[in-house]
Amino acid sequence: MTDETALLAANSAYYQAFLARDNEAMAALWALDGVSCVYPGWTPLIGRRAVLASYADIFRNPLQEPIARGQETVILGESEGRVLCIETVGGGALAATNWFRRFDGRWLLLHHQASPIAIAAREPPNRNAMH
Amino acid sequence: MTDETALLAANSAYYQAFLARDNEAMAALWALDGVSCVYPGWTPLIGRRAVLASYADIFRNPLQEPIARGQETVILGESEGRVLCIETVGGGALAATNWFRRFDGRWLLLHHQASPIAIAAREPPNRNAMH
Repeated sequence: MTDETALLAANSAYYQAFLARDNEAMAALWALDGVSCVYPGWTPLIGRRAVLASYADIFRNPLQEPIARGQETVILGESEGRVLCIETVGGGALAATNWFRRFDGRWLLLHHQASPIAIAAREPPNRNAMH
Repeated sequence: MTDETALLAANSAYYQAFLARDNEAMAALWALDGVSCVYPGWTPLIGRRAVLASYADIFRNPLQEPIARGQETVILGESEGRVLCIETVGGGALAATNWFRRFDGRWLLLHHQASPIAIAAREPPNRNAMH
């Protein structure tokens, strides 16, 4: 498995954990230290405890819509990598960045940020580009 | 100068270049490869050329409001680090992530993402925390 493939698999696992509302799976995807998360409309959450608590809150919300992702772009460094993608949720679209670091061969999440967008259909990003 | 201080200085230089509409200074702040940028409402920009062209466009716009930043939080890795902060621009607030990598002792930008927020006054982030 190449680094790109492993990173895309880790990104996929994030959205699977979200869809399944699986706190244990979500916790296993995040690094133990140095994590942050920025949800649409909110100030940043800093630290693993705050980030995992926020997912637990989201998963308890029966009105939370499922999220689908697409248009993934991988940008790979030596021990860090990010996946930029478009999330669709509840009829809206978000530009999401999921940033990973490799620990002992496993890519773990350091940061998630999703920004509302209104122009996904007219302004697609550079799809599937590998850098 | 500690890594935290250097990272905050690099973050400050970014906002100074923006305020001065200085394309040359902005170009010097970004890494040569592996860069991305997500502006409020827009799909991701991938690659140094696209990102620098977008700043040139912004700097040519006479209606662009100045940006002030505050509430900086530094999260530091070995060779990468990020600054999360709150931007205020035109009466609105944004949650911004500026991600840097150290090259030969200089912290250069890899990624900028700013998300509109509406709750800055009620939900301040964990200020000045170092991780």
